[in-house]
Amino acid sequence: MKIALDAMGGDKGPSTLVQGAVRAARELGTEVILVGQEDILSRELSRCGAKGLPISIKHASQVVDMAESPSDALRRKKDSSVRVAFDLVKAGEAKGAVSAGNSGATLATAMFTLGRIKGIRPAIATLVPTLKEPSLIIDVGANVDCKPHHLLQFGIMGALFVREFLKNENPRVGLLSIGEEGSKGNIQVKKAYDLLEASNLNFCGNVEGRDVFKGEVDVIVCDGFVGNICLKLSEGLAESVIAMLRNEIEGNFLAIMGYGLAKKAFKRFKKRVDYAEYGGAPLLGVKGTAIICHGSSEPKAVMNAIGVAHNLAALNLAEKLQASMSNRRDILRII
Amino acid sequence: MKIALDAMGGDKGPSTLVQGAVRAARELGTEVILVGQEDILSRELSRCGAKGLPISIKHASQVVDMAESPSDALRRKKDSSVRVAFDLVKAGEAKGAVSAGNSGATLATAMFTLGRIKGIRPAIATLVPTLKEPSLIIDVGANVDCKPHHLLQFGIMGALFVREFLKNENPRVGLLSIGEEGSKGNIQVKKAYDLLEASNLNFCGNVEGRDVFKGEVDVIVCDGFVGNICLKLSEGLAESVIAMLRNEIEGNFLAIMGYGLAKKAFKRFKKRVDYAEYGGAPLLGVKGTAIICHGSSEPKAVMNAIGVAHNLAALNLAEKLQASMSNRRDILRII
Repeated sequence: MKIALDAMGGDKGPSTLVQGAVRAARELGTEVILVGQEDILSRELSRCGAKGLPISIKHASQVVDMAESPSDALRRKKDSSVRVAFDLVKAGEAKGAVSAGNSGATLATAMFTLGRIKGIRPAIATLVPTLKEPSLIIDVGANVDCKPHHLLQFGIMGALFVREFLKNENPRVGLLSIGEEGSKGNIQVKKAYDLLEASNLNFCGNVEGRDVFKGEVDVIVCDGFVGNICLKLSEGLAESVIAMLRNEIEGNFLAIMGYGLAKKAFKRFKKRVDYAEYGGAPLLGVKGTAIICHGSSEPKAVMNAIGVAHNLAALNLAEKLQASMSNRRDILRII
Repeated sequence: MKIALDAMGGDKGPSTLVQGAVRAARELGTEVILVGQEDILSRELSRCGAKGLPISIKHASQVVDMAESPSDALRRKKDSSVRVAFDLVKAGEAKGAVSAGNSGATLATAMFTLGRIKGIRPAIATLVPTLKEPSLIIDVGANVDCKPHHLLQFGIMGALFVREFLKNENPRVGLLSIGEEGSKGNIQVKKAYDLLEASNLNFCGNVEGRDVFKGEVDVIVCDGFVGNICLKLSEGLAESVIAMLRNEIEGNFLAIMGYGLAKKAFKRFKKRVDYAEYGGAPLLGVKGTAIICHGSSEPKAVMNAIGVAHNLAALNLAEKLQASMSNRRDILRII
């Protein structure tokens, strides 16, 4: 089972991406197709001493710029590395695709190339660390303007993901809002509350901001605008608190030791919040396996993302989602 | 200049609130009117040894429950402590009111009793610590469903607050969104971006979640749903990270020392994020001074809130806001 890697996208260039692919092949045994400019990629591959590993190269002549508009990229760059990677999935030559490139373009390309499950708004799901088991936040950026029934769809997709991927038989689903009672929230969220409550999900009601990291639910549903802000706020907060701590320390040996330890723990925390470390964020709701990574992903994160793509493809998650959705036409018709 | 304190509201009861009032009178020299059940309050006052301090009592026979619906409270409890406190402001007997009671009811009572500045959506503003100077986040909970021009109004009110209260002549205003460019965000935020850019504010563009605590802007504009979630997420994250740190420590002496220091620094951080510690959150856009405190406010937070109410009243902030808004009828007509 092969996974296609957009080996040109990302802030760190092909070298980092190829190293991640080599680690995936070597440490996880995953077959990888590197997609991008052949000369560059074969040079990087030989540098890594990747001989004998199950890695092949598929040439793509174009590269989508990190700042390029997704629609422009989709329209004008039909031979871009990200496009060719998803074409391989569509053609059945790869079982999933991973990109650390321009995330808007990756999203648009995945939706266009693989197609959406009928009636569904694909959403980006990301696992975050909590005091207990990790929780899945869905959506963290694909849909900035949602209707209440889209939030219901996110809940259904999130629950299926957690059931299949984390082997949690009865995932608890919560709705991100500003108070515990169903009467709290904005119009969108209050309507979504009723839909989730009427569904057959294990719906546990609203989750407030202060409870996101407590791990009381397995799936946290929100729109992509709110989810993206929360995710980035969490990353940024860890960084800022470390800097604030540093400002408070002045020469005290124990304080410096404490600061060092706290800093390490924070970095660990930040890495855990950072979805790249968890192996990228799956795009759920498209007909195939698509993983979106941070632009700044290190080889380890790229390896993990390839591993997640492999596992999701092996689980046939996209097919299961599609089957589950087509059995539940009720949720698609809601307006 | 007297400040009315709802001395019955809050999770901790009249004793804590009266202690806060006594500290405000003693340490800040502020005149306070305690509003609530006279027998209880005079007993608490004598317990505190408050003789000679400029504190008086105004009787109010009812108390709004922490879980009561704001509209019920407003309709049925016309002699509640929070209502009588705001009535005192309306009547000119106090220059501002402070409540740590049911915040929805406080909000509704302040808006009903004092009245809104014409055409304006009142918003709750709160100062948060950053790597540099504190930033003001507005709105953190008064308006869960906003139009783009409401976000512009929040920007204008926030900038005026920072100019007057923090003596910052040219506050930088940012819009909370999911990318730096004006083209990033949901429909509401993209339209608000254009309005803010066309205004005479010192608008610095979008602020992403990861930059909230960096202090690059002085005012961060968002709707009350997003703002409330961000504020609570920040509080909860500090708590959860401390608990995660604890889980990682196993008997290592230095690690325990480090943990102790990190924990202290965190508690400090949490207090700084907690708006009660900053002296409560002002409700901007009503015709008078109203301060909303956390239900769990300690005496120090109550004292600080009374101090902030006094300072805002002395600055005539509400009057200045009203004058500034009536000079700018353009912003009220936008749809």
